[in-house]
Amino acid sequence: MERTYRLVIACPDRVGIVAKVTTFLATYNGWITEASHHADPANGWFYMRNEIRASSLPFDLDSFRIAFEPIANEFEMRWHIADSAKTKKIVLMASKESHCLADLLHRYHTGELDGEIVAVIANHDDLRRMVEWHSIPYHLVKVDSKDKAPAFAEVESLIDQYDADVVVLARYMQILPSGLCAKYEGKIINIHHSFLPSFAGAKPYHQAYKRGVKLIGATCHYVTEDLDEGPIIEQDVRRINHSDTIEDMVRLGRDVERQVLSRGLLYHLQDRVIVHENKTIVFE
Amino acid sequence: MERTYRLVIACPDRVGIVAKVTTFLATYNGWITEASHHADPANGWFYMRNEIRASSLPFDLDSFRIAFEPIANEFEMRWHIADSAKTKKIVLMASKESHCLADLLHRYHTGELDGEIVAVIANHDDLRRMVEWHSIPYHLVKVDSKDKAPAFAEVESLIDQYDADVVVLARYMQILPSGLCAKYEGKIINIHHSFLPSFAGAKPYHQAYKRGVKLIGATCHYVTEDLDEGPIIEQDVRRINHSDTIEDMVRLGRDVERQVLSRGLLYHLQDRVIVHENKTIVFE
Amino acid sequence: MERTYRLVIACPDRVGIVAKVTTFLATYNGWITEASHHADPANGWFYMRNEIRASSLPFDLDSFRIAFEPIANEFEMRWHIADSAKTKKIVLMASKESHCLADLLHRYHTGELDGEIVAVIANHDDLRRMVEWHSIPYHLVKVDSKDKAPAFAEVESLIDQYDADVVVLARYMQILPSGLCAKYEGKIINIHHSFLPSFAGAKPYHQAYKRGVKLIGATCHYVTEDLDEGPIIEQDVRRINHSDTIEDMVRLGRDVERQVLSRGLLYHLQDRVIVHENKTIVFE
Amino acid sequence: MERTYRLVIACPDRVGIVAKVTTFLATYNGWITEASHHADPANGWFYMRNEIRASSLPFDLDSFRIAFEPIANEFEMRWHIADSAKTKKIVLMASKESHCLADLLHRYHTGELDGEIVAVIANHDDLRRMVEWHSIPYHLVKVDSKDKAPAFAEVESLIDQYDADVVVLARYMQILPSGLCAKYEGKIINIHHSFLPSFAGAKPYHQAYKRGVKLIGATCHYVTEDLDEGPIIEQDVRRINHSDTIEDMVRLGRDVERQVLSRGLLYHLQDRVIVHENKTIVFE
Repeated sequence: MERTYRLVIACPDRVGIVAKVTTFLATYNGWITEASHHADPANGWFYMRNEIRASSLPFDLDSFRIAFEPIANEFEMRWHIADSAKTKKIVLMASKESHCLADLLHRYHTGELDGEIVAVIANHDDLRRMVEWHSIPYHLVKVDSKDKAPAFAEVESLIDQYDADVVVLARYMQILPSGLCAKYEGKIINIHHSFLPSFAGAKPYHQAYKRGVKLIGATCHYVTEDLDEGPIIEQDVRRINHSDTIEDMVRLGRDVERQVLSRGLLYHLQDRVIVHENKTIVFE
Repeated sequence: MERTYRLVIACPDRVGIVAKVTTFLATYNGWITEASHHADPANGWFYMRNEIRASSLPFDLDSFRIAFEPIANEFEMRWHIADSAKTKKIVLMASKESHCLADLLHRYHTGELDGEIVAVIANHDDLRRMVEWHSIPYHLVKVDSKDKAPAFAEVESLIDQYDADVVVLARYMQILPSGLCAKYEGKIINIHHSFLPSFAGAKPYHQAYKRGVKLIGATCHYVTEDLDEGPIIEQDVRRINHSDTIEDMVRLGRDVERQVLSRGLLYHLQDRVIVHENKTIVFE
Repeated sequence: MERTYRLVIACPDRVGIVAKVTTFLATYNGWITEASHHADPANGWFYMRNEIRASSLPFDLDSFRIAFEPIANEFEMRWHIADSAKTKKIVLMASKESHCLADLLHRYHTGELDGEIVAVIANHDDLRRMVEWHSIPYHLVKVDSKDKAPAFAEVESLIDQYDADVVVLARYMQILPSGLCAKYEGKIINIHHSFLPSFAGAKPYHQAYKRGVKLIGATCHYVTEDLDEGPIIEQDVRRINHSDTIEDMVRLGRDVERQVLSRGLLYHLQDRVIVHENKTIVFE
Repeated sequence: MERTYRLVIACPDRVGIVAKVTTFLATYNGWITEASHHADPANGWFYMRNEIRASSLPFDLDSFRIAFEPIANEFEMRWHIADSAKTKKIVLMASKESHCLADLLHRYHTGELDGEIVAVIANHDDLRRMVEWHSIPYHLVKVDSKDKAPAFAEVESLIDQYDADVVVLARYMQILPSGLCAKYEGKIINIHHSFLPSFAGAKPYHQAYKRGVKLIGATCHYVTEDLDEGPIIEQDVRRINHSDTIEDMVRLGRDVERQVLSRGLLYHLQDRVIVHENKTIVFE
């Protein structure tokens, strides 16, 4: 894959934004390989993402930022630019269940994941061997249900030490303290095993079984202080019927979970997601 | 389509039910054209549906019932038998939105609906011309928001007068009084424009838009006294994204609604649905 | 819906296209409400579609064309601009089966179809009453299997007389002569009742049944002289299983057909489709 | 999971089959936990599968066979009975691509696969480390493109030596000689990376890209002497659009391939598939 810069912008909508940005790029002979726009008439905001061939621009990212800053200020943009060659550092967090973890590790192994898994943190030791086969550091941080604070202090310290760009809760099964959620806002991705907002909280498949739904789902979302209420990145479902037991639902649901999580994570890694007011714009 | 008898059974599970029932049928040379079974290990119940070629049996329904009664008693069955030649009488209820109504009318028109639409009851007059084109009686029963009782008394009287086997709320938009719900338990089918239990109540597409879900859905369920809480017959979803406005969701949702409602209704008309403890077994 | 101009462009890719076009628009204070781009690295072409609020521009379409022409020439664009207020004229062609026709008529009736159905041409009289209920002219043009030329001459004459922008074969079941296909290239849309290229030609559901596939589908495509080989606009499928007879497949397939056709047609009506080398770019 | 016997039957349809079989079972107090039936009106055959709690029967499989034989003969049944406790031996065949192999290995690792992977045969050495991590023997059998016979003789010898119940071509990329196909008829499962019969043969994603389809798919089927023409067990698709390159399609297709293959294999391992005249009955 060719090296690109990804310019991602959100700002109040008005005439001339695209003209200004693309003229800026054209002035420097920037070759746009992918462009996405969205104007939201409901809130009056405009969102845009451009991938520009890095070799076509005379800039590194710092110079780009300096050159672009006046335009960003003029249009009151929230914006960032990312270099596809600087892959994001991923810290995975897991518990005992391996399906999401194994899926992400395999995608990483085959080069499909547009990022680098720098560490796995788990509260059990079950998955150590699987992780270490991939030569990835495995950190066991047990969580004492009576006093969770020390564990989460250690988790925080590890995340910082690895300079993680994104933390993925790959069926981690522990609720993060709100301080952590706030500190890494927009950087922690969770997979919830239901089609949210249905069946938030514990044991969603049991809830789904009890209600008798005909589809089960999974939701990939950013973690916020409000459990299971963060901005949704990706969702999917699959059909079940009366003959499926809770165990069947758990098994069938795994396939939905890993697909939804891997898709959602990939969107994030490629700077395709913009969060605005607890919703996401996803430029697939 | 060949005429069949549909024998539908629910009973506590034990050894020998299928043997007893099918030996009974074989004794009389009954030719089974379709058979479905489900044993639920969680509640210890057994469910079964057989379609038997009517011409292969020496019985009319009354004689069948007399002959089968001892077996039903022995196994403590909740059961019924239906004749495919006696199509069910359907009363549709509608308001102003035509998509579900038009869809069911067209399926009826082309012979796809395994039932007879005997009347439409609506609280507005908008859809009269569409209904009357099909030579189906149209009853306007306006609902006075200050005193709804007279309207629902008239609705009840019409349902009884038409001897309806099933009442379909094709986006009727009024909440039926609990007395009506109880009287026709298991006979009133509603389409809710969300993937329940998400977004129960009013304006589900607005709720879905606000939450930022990535799929919208619809749910066909039996009406009970608890609004939007009845047994689910059928559900489906379709993908949306950030660029879809509420108006888009309403428009895209219509296609899901009519499909889910028509499928759910067809299952009911063909005696494919067994309700047990607020859940359904659907023998597709 | 607000009135917009839709500017649709295809041209060889190079630096500065978007800048040039959007600067042109911004110069005249054109407010872009929707923008889509696609650069195809395989063939080196660039495609773009902009919706611009009509009231924000000082132009009617003719003036726009004059002002934009030099830019179009500079970049060797194939392009057109359309006015959302000038809805496209649709001629539907049908035979005996009503499901696609009824679906499009109903969407038209409720204002969902972004176009005007000006006439229906059919080779049987079965659907006349349904069409005339909508106050749409119905033309019976019988096709003599020994000499089809007179019928197609009449069809051509009707299409011309109605000045049709698009002709929709809503299960018309006749193969159009290649002269007609060539004359209205990119303007005739067909629904084929299989997931092309599987099961091209006659009786696709019979072919699908024989092969034992687990999904059936439908394909909406532009008609070209090569039967069932034209550019694909939209496709979809639904699951079947061993218990589905050919009759079941025909019935279940109808739901896929009408959805795929209506979606494909809507994309066309809203100028969302660009055809290039027998493939389509569809800016949903 | 409780130990069961799986009784699978295909025979010409007539009155009394189910009665005879279930009375036989009930006579011995056999507790049926799952029952599926299918009568095919097109060919006059009847298919049935019963799972019976092993502990409820006074038989081992050999005694069961002796006791059931007269009934099977009376109804001219093709039938077999399998013991869920005797898991099937699986030989996987692979090449360089790991996604299907890794998926099946992981499902095996977590106990989701209802069988035992006894060996992997591959024509390249790339996947050895992954396989050996699971403590599964890895056999490299290089295929000389000028003389493939020695390689396939070795493959055959390995399959026999491992007494494989099923051979899975997990993207093996070599065409098996027809002798092998015939010898293990109904025992070799392949995953083809297209929605067959579309894009049979080589490079299906390239073919799909060229044709401009809007969905890509995968097909799990039994291998026969006619390449890509064997009975289809399972299929699925996913949506793509104009912006997806061949590389994107390859990547997105992997998720469909592994899901379709794992589902199809599981059906086979649980004796849920009956092959009849190049089609399958799959009792999900």
